[in-house]
Amino acid sequence: MKEVVILGAGYAGLRALHVLQGSKGDFHITLVDKNDYHYEATDLHEVAAGTQPRERISYDIADVVRPQKTTFLQNEVATIDRQSQRIMFTDQTSLSYDYLIVALGFESESFGIPGVNENALEMVDVDSAETIYHHLLKQMKEYKKTQDPDLLKIVVCGAGFTGVELLGSLVENRKEFAEIAGVQSEEIKLFCVEAVTRLLPMFDENLSAYGINNLVKWGVEFLTGKPIKEIKPGVVVYQTDAETGATEELSAKTIIWTTGVSGSHVMADSNYAARRGRVMVNQDLSDPEHSNVFVVGDVSAVMDPATNRPYPTTAQIALKMGYQAAKNCLHLIKGEKTEDFHFESLGSVASIGNTHAFGLVGKMPVKGYPASFVKKAIMDRSLFLTGGVKEVLAKGRFDFYH
Amino acid sequence: MKEVVILGAGYAGLRALHVLQGSKGDFHITLVDKNDYHYEATDLHEVAAGTQPRERISYDIADVVRPQKTTFLQNEVATIDRQSQRIMFTDQTSLSYDYLIVALGFESESFGIPGVNENALEMVDVDSAETIYHHLLKQMKEYKKTQDPDLLKIVVCGAGFTGVELLGSLVENRKEFAEIAGVQSEEIKLFCVEAVTRLLPMFDENLSAYGINNLVKWGVEFLTGKPIKEIKPGVVVYQTDAETGATEELSAKTIIWTTGVSGSHVMADSNYAARRGRVMVNQDLSDPEHSNVFVVGDVSAVMDPATNRPYPTTAQIALKMGYQAAKNCLHLIKGEKTEDFHFESLGSVASIGNTHAFGLVGKMPVKGYPASFVKKAIMDRSLFLTGGVKEVLAKGRFDFYH
Repeated sequence: MKEVVILGAGYAGLRALHVLQGSKGDFHITLVDKNDYHYEATDLHEVAAGTQPRERISYDIADVVRPQKTTFLQNEVATIDRQSQRIMFTDQTSLSYDYLIVALGFESESFGIPGVNENALEMVDVDSAETIYHHLLKQMKEYKKTQDPDLLKIVVCGAGFTGVELLGSLVENRKEFAEIAGVQSEEIKLFCVEAVTRLLPMFDENLSAYGINNLVKWGVEFLTGKPIKEIKPGVVVYQTDAETGATEELSAKTIIWTTGVSGSHVMADSNYAARRGRVMVNQDLSDPEHSNVFVVGDVSAVMDPATNRPYPTTAQIALKMGYQAAKNCLHLIKGEKTEDFHFESLGSVASIGNTHAFGLVGKMPVKGYPASFVKKAIMDRSLFLTGGVKEVLAKGRFDFYH
Repeated sequence: MKEVVILGAGYAGLRALHVLQGSKGDFHITLVDKNDYHYEATDLHEVAAGTQPRERISYDIADVVRPQKTTFLQNEVATIDRQSQRIMFTDQTSLSYDYLIVALGFESESFGIPGVNENALEMVDVDSAETIYHHLLKQMKEYKKTQDPDLLKIVVCGAGFTGVELLGSLVENRKEFAEIAGVQSEEIKLFCVEAVTRLLPMFDENLSAYGINNLVKWGVEFLTGKPIKEIKPGVVVYQTDAETGATEELSAKTIIWTTGVSGSHVMADSNYAARRGRVMVNQDLSDPEHSNVFVVGDVSAVMDPATNRPYPTTAQIALKMGYQAAKNCLHLIKGEKTEDFHFESLGSVASIGNTHAFGLVGKMPVKGYPASFVKKAIMDRSLFLTGGVKEVLAKGRFDFYH
């Protein structure tokens, strides 16, 4: 009996599990995750802003594991020893595999900027997202006592997909914060500091402008073309002039870091030649040095033949990689040839708050309330694709259509 | 205790039920339908073409009825007596109401064209859709014996939304038919006869052309600008010249009627001033003569203030009407004022087969495989909106993403 180990219960790992569990063959699966729940990484901003409770974006891994075929092991991976085909855990235990699917996901990336880890809030999992929300509530209560205007200021560092969606949800929930602080909604000040000037380059100018202009209209102040140089306690230091290196400071009691992510540190710790935690894999998603190992999701970089650059890291691509890695694992078990990974984007839609969204369906632009409907339908569907079928029902996400 | 009666368990009726069951108040609900199941009327073409079994597009009404609040009565409505506030059934029994939501749905409309009822197959409910599929299988088996080429011909009368989606599914399933008949797929001949020349006027020319040109590429022959004058057994008679009235004939053993629908005959039978079974209602969806009665879905015509014409009959609008009628019913029970119905289309997407679709998200055109993904996500969502939550899971419609 062959042992297939899946590391990580995110989009890629659970999609792989779903395919493997649905397939016949003489193999057993062990799924490993440090948490006993799956969460929808694309919805963390809602927990951070308080527009969704954590229960709505997570479900128990136990609910999608079939015990006849799969063992779930809650443990934290330290390193992968590909020579001896063993996973080493931080508690000194270990686990052997015949086939391995590495889907360890992402971490926050500071890009070496001083003070980020110490003085900015990261948003990388349900706990850190919830910490942001609780932090926000605390600042609002504190404002009632001290009237320090910095308590009402929220700075989002980074105007990428995540930063923009987070700003949308913060706008959406501004009223709750204002009520606690005893102020008007407009007094909650939202800022976004970003190094580049052309925001959301995956969308055309018209579409990006739709998203950004709405946020501006709702009161978000964008500081673009301003690389962040340091985060001091309660202060964002950003460069205003590339030639002179002149900087300015923005003070705020809430500073959230969404400028970028890297793959899990486990990759470098396991002697992978990883760049920002991403390993360049073969076209069939296999490890270049070990054909019985597949590397997928945010720890994986696979070349897009069309652009000759790696595909971006998205939930959509992670789901598809998880599917293909599982299929290729099954091919190997049966002694068959593996298949190359192919991907054509279905597009992506960014929500800004509950009733606005914009993005692409395939290559076709959509925006406004209808796009927001489409976004929600697709988000619900992603829950199904990770296998969390019976969990969808409890999420109460189906009642907005009236 | 007030008695609220809902007639019909389609999109509008079940959406109303869902809202009423979720609301507090001193009332009891009786839901009436002639069947003990709900079916997704927008998916009948898949059952007719054999690409989905009936189980996938229908679920038991019992699964969405909360017995503490609602009684389900399986019976066939004969007439509504609004004076005495009673529903008369075809079995001579009757039922009283305080408030009524009429959501009796649609019927096939022959427009008085001779032979339609006798010689064409209608597609108005699960039974009639399944009848088409069984009829098709029978023709294919018969072909093996007699080699009559008319047995391989399928004529869809009408190139509206339903006709086009049906043609897409027939193309999709042509292989199955061909195998039974012992022929090549191309030998199954698909025709579409339509009176107008500008097809799918709800979409712009570019988008309509995408859908129609794909069907043509897949072998569908369109006869447009050809009003059907008569259906004889195995023969469609259509006009080729409006001035001379000259006609031609197309012989085929399968003739499917999708040229249009009307609201239930019960409306006219109940002395409603109905045009093609549709009753012009007030802006709050109430019956102009009886404020305790709401008329919704395909039996209802409500003016769109933007166009000064009635809204079209779609599942989307039926869902929204069901919602508003239930809300207004609750207002009346509480002695409050009713609210006007407002509707802004989220757009509509037509599937042609399993991997192609085209249409509008809001007012924005989408097409191709990504549009097909969006369509499926939205279709799944509509299942939730009628309250058939636990039924969604059994439908197995979530595995296409690979």
